Amino acid sequence: MAEAHAVGNNAVLQGDPVAISTALGILKQRFGDKLQTGEALRRQHGHTLTWIENQPPDAVLFVESAAEVIDIVGIAAAHRVPLIPFGAGTSLEGHVNAPAGGISLDFSRMNRLLRVNERDLDCVVEPGISRAELNAQLRDTGLFFPVDPGAETATLGGMASTRASGTNAVRYGTMRENVLNVTAVMADGSVVRTARRARKSAAGYDLTRLLVGAEGTLGIITELTVRLYGVPEVILAAVCRFGSLEGACNTVIQAIQLGGFGLARVELIDEMQIRAINVHSKLSLAEAPTLFLEFHGSKASAEDGIAQFKALAETEGAIDYQWAEAEADRRRLWKARHEAYFAVKTTWPGKDVLATDVCVPISRLADCVLSTQADIAATGLIAPIAGHAGDGNFHCSVVLDASNAAERETVEGFLKRLAERALDMDGTCTGEHGVGQGKMAYMAAEHGAGVEVMRQIKRTLDPLGIFNPGKIV
Amino acid sequence: MAEAHAVGNNAVLQGDPVAISTALGILKQRFGDKLQTGEALRRQHGHTLTWIENQPPDAVLFVESAAEVIDIVGIAAAHRVPLIPFGAGTSLEGHVNAPAGGISLDFSRMNRLLRVNERDLDCVVEPGISRAELNAQLRDTGLFFPVDPGAETATLGGMASTRASGTNAVRYGTMRENVLNVTAVMADGSVVRTARRARKSAAGYDLTRLLVGAEGTLGIITELTVRLYGVPEVILAAVCRFGSLEGACNTVIQAIQLGGFGLARVELIDEMQIRAINVHSKLSLAEAPTLFLEFHGSKASAEDGIAQFKALAETEGAIDYQWAEAEADRRRLWKARHEAYFAVKTTWPGKDVLATDVCVPISRLADCVLSTQADIAATGLIAPIAGHAGDGNFHCSVVLDASNAAERETVEGFLKRLAERALDMDGTCTGEHGVGQGKMAYMAAEHGAGVEVMRQIKRTLDPLGIFNPGKIV
Repeated sequence: MAEAHAVGNNAVLQGDPVAISTALGILKQRFGDKLQTGEALRRQHGHTLTWIENQPPDAVLFVESAAEVIDIVGIAAAHRVPLIPFGAGTSLEGHVNAPAGGISLDFSRMNRLLRVNERDLDCVVEPGISRAELNAQLRDTGLFFPVDPGAETATLGGMASTRASGTNAVRYGTMRENVLNVTAVMADGSVVRTARRARKSAAGYDLTRLLVGAEGTLGIITELTVRLYGVPEVILAAVCRFGSLEGACNTVIQAIQLGGFGLARVELIDEMQIRAINVHSKLSLAEAPTLFLEFHGSKASAEDGIAQFKALAETEGAIDYQWAEAEADRRRLWKARHEAYFAVKTTWPGKDVLATDVCVPISRLADCVLSTQADIAATGLIAPIAGHAGDGNFHCSVVLDASNAAERETVEGFLKRLAERALDMDGTCTGEHGVGQGKMAYMAAEHGAGVEVMRQIKRTLDPLGIFNPGKIV
Repeated sequence: MAEAHAVGNNAVLQGDPVAISTALGILKQRFGDKLQTGEALRRQHGHTLTWIENQPPDAVLFVESAAEVIDIVGIAAAHRVPLIPFGAGTSLEGHVNAPAGGISLDFSRMNRLLRVNERDLDCVVEPGISRAELNAQLRDTGLFFPVDPGAETATLGGMASTRASGTNAVRYGTMRENVLNVTAVMADGSVVRTARRARKSAAGYDLTRLLVGAEGTLGIITELTVRLYGVPEVILAAVCRFGSLEGACNTVIQAIQLGGFGLARVELIDEMQIRAINVHSKLSLAEAPTLFLEFHGSKASAEDGIAQFKALAETEGAIDYQWAEAEADRRRLWKARHEAYFAVKTTWPGKDVLATDVCVPISRLADCVLSTQADIAATGLIAPIAGHAGDGNFHCSVVLDASNAAERETVEGFLKRLAERALDMDGTCTGEHGVGQGKMAYMAAEHGAGVEVMRQIKRTLDPLGIFNPGKIV
């Protein structure tokens, strides 16, 4: 019914048009208008936010329950039709593309907060709930979900699948640390709840962490339990400008060594990104290596943290501070940071912007950013940098005209050097965006023999290759 | 060369005597005196710290390098001889037993601290280093490794393999959070380094978390990178006695909701365990539900935390406090807690003591402990309880005469009810001890279809079943 063809070292299921058509007929009968095949909708579901070619699915299916997902997996397996889980489509490496065709499973209707366990600091959600919606619904509980990859619409299922992190990870961790369990439909139709709600367990292989970051290639998540945190008594924000990027990084390294000072966010923004933020958010920050900081804690501990951080920063060449004590100022500041990508779009209008990320041991962060800035200058690119300094993770927003083949080639060379630079520093080709299609080329260099272990796992758990084929391995 | 026979649903490699003898001959020639077959040594390497029958390996091999491990895996695969990695033998569920014979790989000679990356807060170690030795060698750096399962001699490799945690987990996490990567020899002889040193990565399946907690059944760890932390400026300890166990648990729940107050350890000790600690450590603590507490932070934040905790505890029926500000007092207190198991041995001399653990959502901790105490009373057992209240994890040290079949049967019934009680509360049959042989019976109830996923992974990555057979699945 379907044939496999080799892409690199890996066999990717190639959906057979007849089989897909048969499967769509069956699904249409079963699901009626929940199954859509309009081109605009299909193209929107293959949206990549990159220059990776849009490869739309053959259909979009708006799922409404886990029971439906089980049925769909059964039909897809019988006809060897690819299934691509879709949250909000905010992933950045072509994760939701359909290179072998198939069906995009849209989870936007499975977006309920099912249960809040306030005393356990966790909640159970459907995968289609967005992080903004989750936090809105949690507001009255005094609890919040901290993982914040930027996009307000990012869904919990998508964030789990890409192992998302973001600005808060230095204090609260990433999806790796904050997913207690997932319920997933496996390729054989079985339903696995990967763990109980206990905070920790030593009972067998860590299936939760296997599915978190698997980008929908091993199972389809239909429910998650995630950790929550008490909203801190006090949140204090600040902007701290440095004479040098090394000074900014050294301050962060020492602050973390000294216990973190209650730092919840510590974002490194380079000169070019400051310029874009100023344009977009109508701020007038000086164009210098800058840290955006946020401290969470009790009033006493947050103020203590700020004072200690300030003392450290001064010894490392901090030039000036702006403390944003008022909530409105704080929100404005972090809104500006969150819109860094759009700021680049505003500042260089009419251009495409390609967002990429790498992550290195924090001791190498200044070195990696400075080398990358030098590469950007030498290559003649515009590519502002913003990063999660506490994690050693940073982003380049590369400005280009993606329709210009020469420019694309230049940028491709830059991206390759960036990933290799991070790997040379014992870092990773992606700290939080994930592999998707865009970073597959670096997997062998990063993981060596580990790639074959990943392939063995993929082949065993999805022998027909129906789950999000052509991604990761 | 070897035959498989079914144990439960799972095929366990049964070492063939002729094959083992052949392999031992080859290994003797290759490794000389590093290979030992004396009965006392073999029995010591099958030591279970439980009533599980000692099943000694056929030989003990003191490995000295990863290259040797690769050779050994090749020879073991060729002759289908089981390999059982051995750290310090402090695991509690028969993890190092050799039910199918084979070779215990003793890592005590691979015990070096290879590199400390002070600015990155990590270090690279060989698996045989003990946590006490690691922290001794780190002393001059101002850094420490926090995971503390009690046993000073526990090795980092063993702790990673059992996903160990312990008293510090509420603040610093377990081995799951603190292992950045492992290097492991896989069953096909390939060497996998599961990740780089970056703090986080979204690059593919989380092989680190797959090997952490795998109890040596998927690969043999030859190197680890683990996270370190700055020694806190101030450590304050306290003992807080409550009128009720619910009061103690409610205090902990609220403290965590309010951000943790800098709590690094919060141990719940029941009346019977207090009695044993008093006998063993010559203390005179009142016999009541008690929290042992430790606060880490700056002086200001730790004192703030203590004050806030005290205020909370008073509203929940705390009876009295003892603050141990002097380091000697603090050490004495925590030494008493760490020796809880030995305290039970001292208090009921001549008896066997069986240590078990379960973990539940923290909201159910008081309920689970009280139900368990009622069960203990109804069954006529002696079984002091001590637990990591911040994680919902607790231990029973069951006193018995293991040679008395009737007593064993009583205790087996109690252990079964304890595990089922935890599962009924959406908890796990083991929070930190691991599965080994002792908890295999509960895997199906806990994981359902997930057990088959675990088996598929095991069969794929270790198709001959040579790695620690008869454990987990």
